[in-house]
Amino acid sequence: MPDLALVIRDISEEMAQRPDRGAVADYIPELAGIDPNQFGIAVIDGEGQVFTGGDSETPFSIQSVSKVFTLTLALGMVGDRLWRRVGREPSGNPFNSIVQLERERGVPRNPFINAGAIAVTDLILSGHEPREALGEILRFLQFLAQDPTIAIDERVAASEKRTGFRNTALANYMKSFGVIENPVDYTLGVYFHHCAIAMNCRQLATAGRFLAHNGRNPATGHSVVSAERARRINAIMLTCGHYDGSGEFAYRVGLPGKSGVGGGILAVAPGKASIAVWAPGLDTAGNSHLGRVALEQLTQRMGWSVFGV
Amino acid sequence: MPDLALVIRDISEEMAQRPDRGAVADYIPELAGIDPNQFGIAVIDGEGQVFTGGDSETPFSIQSVSKVFTLTLALGMVGDRLWRRVGREPSGNPFNSIVQLERERGVPRNPFINAGAIAVTDLILSGHEPREALGEILRFLQFLAQDPTIAIDERVAASEKRTGFRNTALANYMKSFGVIENPVDYTLGVYFHHCAIAMNCRQLATAGRFLAHNGRNPATGHSVVSAERARRINAIMLTCGHYDGSGEFAYRVGLPGKSGVGGGILAVAPGKASIAVWAPGLDTAGNSHLGRVALEQLTQRMGWSVFGV
Amino acid sequence: MPDLALVIRDISEEMAQRPDRGAVADYIPELAGIDPNQFGIAVIDGEGQVFTGGDSETPFSIQSVSKVFTLTLALGMVGDRLWRRVGREPSGNPFNSIVQLERERGVPRNPFINAGAIAVTDLILSGHEPREALGEILRFLQFLAQDPTIAIDERVAASEKRTGFRNTALANYMKSFGVIENPVDYTLGVYFHHCAIAMNCRQLATAGRFLAHNGRNPATGHSVVSAERARRINAIMLTCGHYDGSGEFAYRVGLPGKSGVGGGILAVAPGKASIAVWAPGLDTAGNSHLGRVALEQLTQRMGWSVFGV
Amino acid sequence: MPDLALVIRDISEEMAQRPDRGAVADYIPELAGIDPNQFGIAVIDGEGQVFTGGDSETPFSIQSVSKVFTLTLALGMVGDRLWRRVGREPSGNPFNSIVQLERERGVPRNPFINAGAIAVTDLILSGHEPREALGEILRFLQFLAQDPTIAIDERVAASEKRTGFRNTALANYMKSFGVIENPVDYTLGVYFHHCAIAMNCRQLATAGRFLAHNGRNPATGHSVVSAERARRINAIMLTCGHYDGSGEFAYRVGLPGKSGVGGGILAVAPGKASIAVWAPGLDTAGNSHLGRVALEQLTQRMGWSVFGV
Repeated sequence: MPDLALVIRDISEEMAQRPDRGAVADYIPELAGIDPNQFGIAVIDGEGQVFTGGDSETPFSIQSVSKVFTLTLALGMVGDRLWRRVGREPSGNPFNSIVQLERERGVPRNPFINAGAIAVTDLILSGHEPREALGEILRFLQFLAQDPTIAIDERVAASEKRTGFRNTALANYMKSFGVIENPVDYTLGVYFHHCAIAMNCRQLATAGRFLAHNGRNPATGHSVVSAERARRINAIMLTCGHYDGSGEFAYRVGLPGKSGVGGGILAVAPGKASIAVWAPGLDTAGNSHLGRVALEQLTQRMGWSVFGV
Repeated sequence: MPDLALVIRDISEEMAQRPDRGAVADYIPELAGIDPNQFGIAVIDGEGQVFTGGDSETPFSIQSVSKVFTLTLALGMVGDRLWRRVGREPSGNPFNSIVQLERERGVPRNPFINAGAIAVTDLILSGHEPREALGEILRFLQFLAQDPTIAIDERVAASEKRTGFRNTALANYMKSFGVIENPVDYTLGVYFHHCAIAMNCRQLATAGRFLAHNGRNPATGHSVVSAERARRINAIMLTCGHYDGSGEFAYRVGLPGKSGVGGGILAVAPGKASIAVWAPGLDTAGNSHLGRVALEQLTQRMGWSVFGV
Repeated sequence: MPDLALVIRDISEEMAQRPDRGAVADYIPELAGIDPNQFGIAVIDGEGQVFTGGDSETPFSIQSVSKVFTLTLALGMVGDRLWRRVGREPSGNPFNSIVQLERERGVPRNPFINAGAIAVTDLILSGHEPREALGEILRFLQFLAQDPTIAIDERVAASEKRTGFRNTALANYMKSFGVIENPVDYTLGVYFHHCAIAMNCRQLATAGRFLAHNGRNPATGHSVVSAERARRINAIMLTCGHYDGSGEFAYRVGLPGKSGVGGGILAVAPGKASIAVWAPGLDTAGNSHLGRVALEQLTQRMGWSVFGV
Repeated sequence: MPDLALVIRDISEEMAQRPDRGAVADYIPELAGIDPNQFGIAVIDGEGQVFTGGDSETPFSIQSVSKVFTLTLALGMVGDRLWRRVGREPSGNPFNSIVQLERERGVPRNPFINAGAIAVTDLILSGHEPREALGEILRFLQFLAQDPTIAIDERVAASEKRTGFRNTALANYMKSFGVIENPVDYTLGVYFHHCAIAMNCRQLATAGRFLAHNGRNPATGHSVVSAERARRINAIMLTCGHYDGSGEFAYRVGLPGKSGVGGGILAVAPGKASIAVWAPGLDTAGNSHLGRVALEQLTQRMGWSVFGV
């Protein structure tokens, strides 16, 4: 068994120096100014030991990584009824594509593309005020990460609201088919805000532990979801968690994972570890470039791929 | 640890009796007459113990399950150059869709949709006569299954050739972009024939063992592919192995698997077992209905999902 | 030469009685209650003689027929720069499709599908307050129809605004590509209101006279547009004026025409006549069913098809 | 009334010298070697007077212009049953697109895109040997052009057959939906050969006269089709005759017309003239660049646009 601390040190050192850093997302103005030279990683193993490297304490905008937690929360609220509003197949299209929605009458392909995550947010919102729903999402993340300081970066949320025309298009399009029930502004308000939650790698890895351990956080013993539901969320992360780069991530990394355009990735090695990496530069599919490279090295050296040692 | 023999007996009994059997593929005339009341299963564990149930000795047309083996063979012949001709992302479209080919200039999304498998066959064919290439594929399967009696069902091959207009369209379409190099008739001839290979569940589970054990068949010690390549083939099986039902298969079964319209599925529990099931009736995505149900029960009871126990 | 008055009387009588009346548009609630048994027609020949039949004095919501006039107005304001924002090819898709926008980076195919007309409205709006822009459009129609009583049906406008999620999606989608410059709410506000202008057949036929007579209204001698521009607007009406039923309209009627979901059609027989028909029931492509039938009979009997007598 | 002879002389002179000549089609090897500096024009007015300019006696490959004549012939053979196999709407896609076929279950949008013309050829073929069907098409053109010397360029036909993978894909795709009834090789053989018919501008303008004169050739008095059918063919030429540049052609030229990748265009000024132009260089939509420019000047100066003088 390789020494995890050593592996993480090696990876952190290499990632700090690599010249190929991808391009920072520029379509959310507030994110465009992030320094691409940052890299952070945190791994929490089955015993709860935390291994970190690089900028693991620097908060970043989790963006679409939040979709894992809103899916979990919504499944807890409405159960499998959720699947009437959103599918669970890879989309074969970029993260913000609207083509598939026309072909499939407003039902998004999965909860991890933008349209699907907006539909999930709409389910969480039902019967609540936006600020209540948002509070619930935030408290859920604080609970999972065992850290009440986690907060929303309001400037990022405001920036997305001002420029999120494509998401507004997706939401209105679904609304025209009855897939969105609340006022579009309410649903999008909650969506833009939960995407703007800021976390660091350590917090994110902590929050994802229940997915690595059959739905329970081994530190607290709290059961977040059933073992079956944890497996199923992992399955969706693996097939759909990296937009139109999901196949590539499975091929290279071999773990369920969910990326965000802020450069973060949450990855799950079932039974072994919860992992968060962060590197702001993205590849052409919109996923963290060095984040993926780091995870590839980590799973390779640790033998953590779900597809074989 | 549950008793595998018992689990398989239970599953076989239930599957023999369930009324929901799906619909036998009717677009290949020679397959349309198959009795939908059949069901077979074979599981080979890490120690090489074989567990079977139902019609596990009845040969069936492996159809697209053959794509796992042609991919393996082609990677052995041309290595990662293969990925210049075919992608490795889920397609988000049915198995025989041509839309994606137009958008992506003739390069199929992955080696497990028809277009992709035809492109892989074209790579195997390069520089050979069709009958040589076909011989090589057949011998590879006989070697993997350790059974020289495995053969092609010529009536099925002839039936596909007579009616395979959609595959002929796909091949010519790729040819127009230079993705197919050999004469279309040659490539399709080999493709139709390797899809028409007949195997039973036991043979198929044996042939797939190398994927469960880091590229080596534990029985013979033969290394078929490197451990990394085995993982990667498993990854593609998981994200793309069930056409536009791949997400559903991952969600319910949680194993890399590849289905064929003959009703067979090869599934791989890395480190644990190689599994073949067969039930001729298909669901709307073209995958064996009871085959999937049986695998869902098997992984659930054995705790074999790659996504957690 | 057949007697036009007689032809119109025959057509009006037949249309009043036909059982096949199509289906009234129900996606705008305020239009859903319209009585489908109405039919009106007005024809103004080259000498300015007006021939009417049926409910030719009943105002109806002109809806997309307004797009002919906003295109004319916008061309007068920005000239051929307009074509940087919108194409002039048939779309091959329904009136409210968003698929094409994704493929062509937010540039709508022509000014007569919803997306294109919204982009045209955005050009008219530039540098104005919404109410000013709307006033300008309304005054232009009053001027063309020589009737200052023409007005907007505010209930229809409000109804569209409340339920126009798909148009809101289209506008936001174009905005994300920079094709819409004004705030989306402003542009859509003007768009929903000019679609809600109410006119009767006589007014509409009068307003369209300039297109039949080389850009000039023969009654007033006013030149509205150049002869070349009139021809070109007619060309776009012929190829794109009936959404995905434009080919059918050209095939059966043989005149440039523009339909609206209110059941109105403006048609132009160059050099001969300006024609307005109204029948609220629509065919599956969203065009007035009896309106088209009436125009087919009219052009056939009068020998007015642009494609030969 | 401008002097037609003078207009044609001016146009011919300008076209001979213009530097913007487009690009000769290179996907049919036999056409790739054509000298792009050629230009020909022939106009036959209502009285039968022939006006020619430039290389009007040089034969060229009529390619898709032949689709007008095969449509006419097929309508004569099977009548409106033809429309069960092919639509009559603009496609909104390039000439050889296969996307639309998947969405609309193998039924091509109109008879002037490749798929539609192949389906029409298949109708003509029904119950004949390929050489008989081809003979019938050729004799029909010889009859229309009153010239028994018109022939097929066998080298062009052979060249297309060798390289026509995309058309082979289209035909097989339609066959898979039952839209093609004859063996694909037969249908394509006839299709490739009728596209390879060689004619000069004078012959082509003569062959098209019936479309300008209510279905009758005024020179012979022969009625080729009814007046209604002539109008309808003209309508389809206007909306669909230039692939995805049909809107542009209507906008600029304002006449029904059909182009071919050999650089020819047949245009019809109903009641006035039949026109053939030829210039081998194509624009990006696959239509003759200078052919379109010449027609634009001709209709402008003669006041022949169907959309107004």
